[in-house]
Amino acid sequence: MRDLKKKNKLVEAAGDVYGKTLMLLPLDVCSDESVKQCINNVKDRHIDILINNAGVGLLGPVESISIEEMKRVFETNFFGVVRMIKEVMPDMKKRRSGHIVVMSSVMGLQGVVFNDVYTASKFAMEGFCESMAVQLMKFNIRLSMIEPGPVHTEFETKMMEDVAKMEYPGVDADTVRYFKDVYLPSSIDIFEAMGQTPEDIAKCTKKVIESSSPRFRNLTNSLYTPIVALKYADETGGLSVNTFYNLLFNFGPLMHITMSILKCLTCSCLRRRTI
Amino acid sequence: MRDLKKKNKLVEAAGDVYGKTLMLLPLDVCSDESVKQCINNVKDRHIDILINNAGVGLLGPVESISIEEMKRVFETNFFGVVRMIKEVMPDMKKRRSGHIVVMSSVMGLQGVVFNDVYTASKFAMEGFCESMAVQLMKFNIRLSMIEPGPVHTEFETKMMEDVAKMEYPGVDADTVRYFKDVYLPSSIDIFEAMGQTPEDIAKCTKKVIESSSPRFRNLTNSLYTPIVALKYADETGGLSVNTFYNLLFNFGPLMHITMSILKCLTCSCLRRRTI
Repeated sequence: MRDLKKKNKLVEAAGDVYGKTLMLLPLDVCSDESVKQCINNVKDRHIDILINNAGVGLLGPVESISIEEMKRVFETNFFGVVRMIKEVMPDMKKRRSGHIVVMSSVMGLQGVVFNDVYTASKFAMEGFCESMAVQLMKFNIRLSMIEPGPVHTEFETKMMEDVAKMEYPGVDADTVRYFKDVYLPSSIDIFEAMGQTPEDIAKCTKKVIESSSPRFRNLTNSLYTPIVALKYADETGGLSVNTFYNLLFNFGPLMHITMSILKCLTCSCLRRRTI
Repeated sequence: MRDLKKKNKLVEAAGDVYGKTLMLLPLDVCSDESVKQCINNVKDRHIDILINNAGVGLLGPVESISIEEMKRVFETNFFGVVRMIKEVMPDMKKRRSGHIVVMSSVMGLQGVVFNDVYTASKFAMEGFCESMAVQLMKFNIRLSMIEPGPVHTEFETKMMEDVAKMEYPGVDADTVRYFKDVYLPSSIDIFEAMGQTPEDIAKCTKKVIESSSPRFRNLTNSLYTPIVALKYADETGGLSVNTFYNLLFNFGPLMHITMSILKCLTCSCLRRRTI
């Protein structure tokens, strides 16, 4: 973890295994030096499974976000993972074994309005890993993406509350209105209808690393399967863009009902296809 | 252009229209200041169509590429486009009109081995634009991606020649061998079988900007449609990863024949579906 002073909750939850099979090390994925030092402190630098979980969010009209702020998101969400993979992969290649797991997002597969930069950072990770997977297979190294939808965390709740209060002085009034009065309520609706717990994601991750033939892509939430399918069903991209536009701007009040129907439609046939 | 001293070829090709309907301005998409100045030098800052064409390539084992080098690719391919969109979009929003075109790549839709970083930068752009498209539609602004496959340019040829000569001291022998002896010959094969000219891409772009209802996605090369379809046909990602693995490592000598067959299979039914 970045700050070992914050370890108490984890140590408590770990109970007896702490100090036996669980070890905590300081790690800041934004620093080349910290990444190297962390792995050097692991016995023989031997990593069987690398799970890349560090990530930050960013929400709001792009007009209000500086290039520097965007780069901070990429520093953790993209370059942080690349740093870890670069540090661990050469040893895995030598041993001809290992499993790299990357915590991506459904926003790594499908863009979401007003999540432009977060989406871009997760897409970047998907593209990087799609390219790496073919090469890694030759070295018997597995690579798995985990793509959760919305997850209920303190962090998410706080971010939603913060942006609802923000002023966005440089942004035109219509854009701010679409963001605050159209997107945010829909987004909260989606969180309530589709949100998973961090425990759900941890269980999915456990299944992936225990599987004898782990899948490359792993959507944790079956309710998102139809949304990603829209993109795959139409190579022009029009179906996705138009559907999301209509859901957001034309059928706003019906969004909640739409999602409930979606929920019923998918749970019987598609849920069993996800982990 | 970045360096107006290099304008001669373009001015010559433009003939009479230079100075009348064609104006050249200095622009470095990696600089906030340069982007602002360029748009300020356009009459009334009025841009009807923004075509984002600047891009750089990067090829080779990630072990040999520093984080700084990766960031340089993102600076042009991703943040360069974001800078331009941020500068031009507010005026387009006010006018409720405009068309933004982004030169992406098939590598923005499907990862390619040893192109990990370039792929990531193009994926990032696709994700960013998928997110933006829904919001922009509300302001009557169009957003189109152009996804070329391999394009024959001096730049590409030189890059291929350069990497073939490079040493890659920090990279294990197997990885270097897979890159130089397996990937590069296949890649040259693909260039020869599927490569388009810059003029082909320019024609496609012209069609997109002249269309009364431009598509969001525009693959310029029908031969790539089946390759992207592999991804869309299997949500686990296994079909793509295994196919590319087999094509590269198991059927290397048959690659050229495979591509010729692919060419015959697709030209009749799929070519007319692309621009």
